[in-house]
Amino acid sequence: MRGMGKVEITFLPAGRAVPVEPGTAILKAAHAHGVEITATCGGRGRCTSCRVKFVAGPVPPPTIMDQLQLGDDLLREGYRLACQTPATEAITVQVAPPLDESAFQILGADRDLSYLGGVEMDAGVRKRCVRVAPPSEEHHQTSDLEELCRAAGGRAEEVPLEIVRDLPGILRAAKGEVTVASFGEALLAVEPGDTSAMAFGLAIDVGTTSVVTTLLELASGEQLASVSSLNPQAVFGGDLMSRIAFAQFNPPNLRKLQSRILGLLNEQIDEVLRRSGVLGKWVYKVVVVGNTSMHHVLLGIDPSYVGLAPYAPVLRHPVVLPARALRLKVNPGARVCLLPIVAGFVGADAVAVALATRIYESPTLKVAVDIGTNGEVLLGSRERLMACSAPAGPAFEGAQIRHGMRAAGGAIDKVWLDDGRLRYHVLGEGPPQGICGSGLLDAVACLLDSGVLDWLGLIQVEARDRLPAGLRDRVEWRGEERVVVLVPKAESGRGEELLLTQDDIRQVQLAKGAIASGIRMLQKIMAVPDAAIDELLLAGGFGNYLSIQSAIRIGLIPPLPPERVRYVGNAAALGAQLALVSEAERERAEAIAGRIEHVALATHPDFQDIFVEAMNFPQE
Amino acid sequence: MRGMGKVEITFLPAGRAVPVEPGTAILKAAHAHGVEITATCGGRGRCTSCRVKFVAGPVPPPTIMDQLQLGDDLLREGYRLACQTPATEAITVQVAPPLDESAFQILGADRDLSYLGGVEMDAGVRKRCVRVAPPSEEHHQTSDLEELCRAAGGRAEEVPLEIVRDLPGILRAAKGEVTVASFGEALLAVEPGDTSAMAFGLAIDVGTTSVVTTLLELASGEQLASVSSLNPQAVFGGDLMSRIAFAQFNPPNLRKLQSRILGLLNEQIDEVLRRSGVLGKWVYKVVVVGNTSMHHVLLGIDPSYVGLAPYAPVLRHPVVLPARALRLKVNPGARVCLLPIVAGFVGADAVAVALATRIYESPTLKVAVDIGTNGEVLLGSRERLMACSAPAGPAFEGAQIRHGMRAAGGAIDKVWLDDGRLRYHVLGEGPPQGICGSGLLDAVACLLDSGVLDWLGLIQVEARDRLPAGLRDRVEWRGEERVVVLVPKAESGRGEELLLTQDDIRQVQLAKGAIASGIRMLQKIMAVPDAAIDELLLAGGFGNYLSIQSAIRIGLIPPLPPERVRYVGNAAALGAQLALVSEAERERAEAIAGRIEHVALATHPDFQDIFVEAMNFPQE
Repeated sequence: MRGMGKVEITFLPAGRAVPVEPGTAILKAAHAHGVEITATCGGRGRCTSCRVKFVAGPVPPPTIMDQLQLGDDLLREGYRLACQTPATEAITVQVAPPLDESAFQILGADRDLSYLGGVEMDAGVRKRCVRVAPPSEEHHQTSDLEELCRAAGGRAEEVPLEIVRDLPGILRAAKGEVTVASFGEALLAVEPGDTSAMAFGLAIDVGTTSVVTTLLELASGEQLASVSSLNPQAVFGGDLMSRIAFAQFNPPNLRKLQSRILGLLNEQIDEVLRRSGVLGKWVYKVVVVGNTSMHHVLLGIDPSYVGLAPYAPVLRHPVVLPARALRLKVNPGARVCLLPIVAGFVGADAVAVALATRIYESPTLKVAVDIGTNGEVLLGSRERLMACSAPAGPAFEGAQIRHGMRAAGGAIDKVWLDDGRLRYHVLGEGPPQGICGSGLLDAVACLLDSGVLDWLGLIQVEARDRLPAGLRDRVEWRGEERVVVLVPKAESGRGEELLLTQDDIRQVQLAKGAIASGIRMLQKIMAVPDAAIDELLLAGGFGNYLSIQSAIRIGLIPPLPPERVRYVGNAAALGAQLALVSEAERERAEAIAGRIEHVALATHPDFQDIFVEAMNFPQE
Repeated sequence: MRGMGKVEITFLPAGRAVPVEPGTAILKAAHAHGVEITATCGGRGRCTSCRVKFVAGPVPPPTIMDQLQLGDDLLREGYRLACQTPATEAITVQVAPPLDESAFQILGADRDLSYLGGVEMDAGVRKRCVRVAPPSEEHHQTSDLEELCRAAGGRAEEVPLEIVRDLPGILRAAKGEVTVASFGEALLAVEPGDTSAMAFGLAIDVGTTSVVTTLLELASGEQLASVSSLNPQAVFGGDLMSRIAFAQFNPPNLRKLQSRILGLLNEQIDEVLRRSGVLGKWVYKVVVVGNTSMHHVLLGIDPSYVGLAPYAPVLRHPVVLPARALRLKVNPGARVCLLPIVAGFVGADAVAVALATRIYESPTLKVAVDIGTNGEVLLGSRERLMACSAPAGPAFEGAQIRHGMRAAGGAIDKVWLDDGRLRYHVLGEGPPQGICGSGLLDAVACLLDSGVLDWLGLIQVEARDRLPAGLRDRVEWRGEERVVVLVPKAESGRGEELLLTQDDIRQVQLAKGAIASGIRMLQKIMAVPDAAIDELLLAGGFGNYLSIQSAIRIGLIPPLPPERVRYVGNAAALGAQLALVSEAERERAEAIAGRIEHVALATHPDFQDIFVEAMNFPQE
């Protein structure tokens, strides 16, 4: 024991020892001292992400939450939830490895330019090489800036001080030849010599769970590099509400969230620039989409009331600000354009989805579903467009699932039934490490088909004798918990069997229920029966990989003929790219945001009934 | 000796020991390690301000500059110029106390409101209390910012992010009652509750040598507090050219200069706020005047080319920027308005002098002389107005004079002849510590009248037998130098006699020559004989205290009848105050700046002759 009655916690594998007041929760102590422990549920005992293993010191008795989340086996092995467990004596704990591998995922840099069909290519960025004569003895009652404006146009009053500061040297560096970059009326940069050929931009999709940054050449729309990473804010809460709660009425925590996301963006920017060989100073425009909370936090705007009824955003208009205001590592004068917002839980990402899917100009009724931790549903046509939020939570991204993981190497991404047995495919073809969202959907569909699950989602342990022979011995009690053994220990790449627990099934039901009830509510309000839906568009990183058949089987989406369901990729990111390469598209985004009618589900009298029904599985 | 062949310099009185490469000049070592040594000439061996006394370690042989500046006595006592003396072994040196006492001087807070006669009182700052209804369940497809704009006017796009960040809490703090402060179209601040009665402003005059900050109530124009301090940039050079040279092509040095002046302004702001009990957040407008270099450095603009022919400013227009951009400790949204610039050496201070003296609307020809380290001369009327720079240097502020000091307690401020003897008056009535500018002028006038100086400025040591008895034994050789003993050791408050040296006389000649030649040049170019000058206005802190008779006697100003010479106080600061309380006056400043014709003295063919003549004293 050191200090004034403090106890010391040593965190492995880093070996950091931190002194804390006795009784401090281990998670709180870790975060207070900069030790990173993921807390997907925001430290509320609702998930297992903050689990630690006691290595030295007395292991405290488990709490109710420990028991519920970790189960007897992990408890016996010395695991506890860091959020629930106070440190009362000196201890050493092993931090569980984060759910993610934390490396950048390379995405979609191979996309062709067909997405630009019909798009008016004009990013709004202009570069012009002009010659400026600095003041001379004969013509001395003037200034550098006045001579620049004389040559390049524009008003001295509107040139930012940051540009003026370095102007004298720049004007004289290349004998008065300078290149002026502008965006609309705004002067972005003055550069020595002729640099007019260099003009790039970034499209950024800030999701609750994943963040995707893509570098494009502005003139051609060509994608030069794209990276995806987990949102590092997740250590402060996996879902939006946990994260808002973290920042609520707590400016230092808000700053933590903001600096985490800005830090990640700068890492991603470094990475796409490095890969493409483009210099940051040649990036003049950045388009960002994201849900309202991500948008607000990125800008450092207090999101407290976004998390409280009536969930009002602080602002909704399309914000444009210089990159220097966010310290992004591109040209400091580059314009960062955030797409507009519709409502507290229908953000710029939903607007980007509408933009990319062209639902706003469709002559027929369409549904666009952006499946994500904080998903949205759009229903409508060129006549009318409605939207609601569909907060699926992170289950489809593999979080809050016992053996869940992202769609990375080692993940089971497909599951099917073969002669009454569960078969699966593993990304990268090695032994399975866990299951990702698309595998989870398939697995649940198979379990429904084979009678392992009833329509209420209960694992039928009591009735396992009636199951196919190949599944019978996979359905068990583990302590008080019903589980399905997805992968026996011998086949597993994890050294232990991979399970689907009853709680995992509930998480899937909550997730799919959120989306399904969103679709149903909009259908109800607009009086659109399934038959009237011309097309259902599946968007989002996860939306691209799921099986349409499984999605229909579990009731995630309405039972449409499969040919009327279409994958549209990461439509939010695509919408950002359209607004990046085309100011006409960016203006259209504003018009779309003004047209979308937001439906606040929670306050609608029919919502509870519809949601409860949507949690169940379709009875075939 | 410590480190890799380094030697250690210990600076007293602080006792700081710093390791340096052998051969490093003591001044350079001091500045590199944050030890403050004043270098009025910029470290060029042209003054004595950086003198140090060797206390331990070998005293190095004096350089030529040491000999010229310090004289034999000081050399024998172990004094050397820190800028000229390299450290070759471990030494301990005593830093000479700075020329200034570094305290704030209280100024002019007792001024009445008569200066506002005829001024249209409207500072442009508006505060309005409005009621904003935050979004509700019934009216939820909106945002806090939209509701603010609905109630208070203005466009969401134009509200700065810094205001949006805190908006949610502010809107809900006083049940939707907020006060909105604006300046023109710009929203400055949103405050909870009704704060509409609180609106203050600052007028700031950044001189090369002195900085004056005055707090005013915007509605009444009442002065609440005013402070004056030495410009702390002086340690990097007393005159403008030294300071520009320090920052030239050296961004870190520019940042040093900028942070010094901004640091001082924040100290002064603290002081005037403390004295008046006003909170910084109630200050919404700041008007700054200063010469071009001070203006540029304050804004962090590269002044390199202001110091090189053709001495062009980087910008000249009236800059307006939010206080947060300079981190001034007032309301972060407050507008800092810099008055416009005419030319590289005729800055916003000259424009402010024109504004305050009303010379721009005078039906008769007037001269306005702003006497300062970097003074300016204006000549003209409502018909035509010309200006030139008149860089007197800091001699009139007591710097670069052997026993010079500012006009503070202990300074000889008046000198006169009484029966062939020198008499003097001391500020604060104690024993004399040194001589300030007005005393210096009087002294030189007396020495001319009594024949101690001839018209070329030479101290008549060889002819002292022909001088009045009371002066005869005051005129001596000291080594190679001619001196006049102004105060014998017995009367001195400094423990040593106070001298006027031949070099001091030269400094006065240079200073008065700069101003006199400026006046003469403008007279010549505009063909205005002395008789046509209706009035000569003496401005500047020093201009207020000098004897008009002495100024005419030494040829600082033309030989006008004394009733046509008038003191106008610190007209630059006054001009700033006018522009602070009246937007009409601030607009007028811009019109005036556009009208003033700048005369570049250095390139005028007659300048050399006129300057040489102006260095001499009038022959009576």
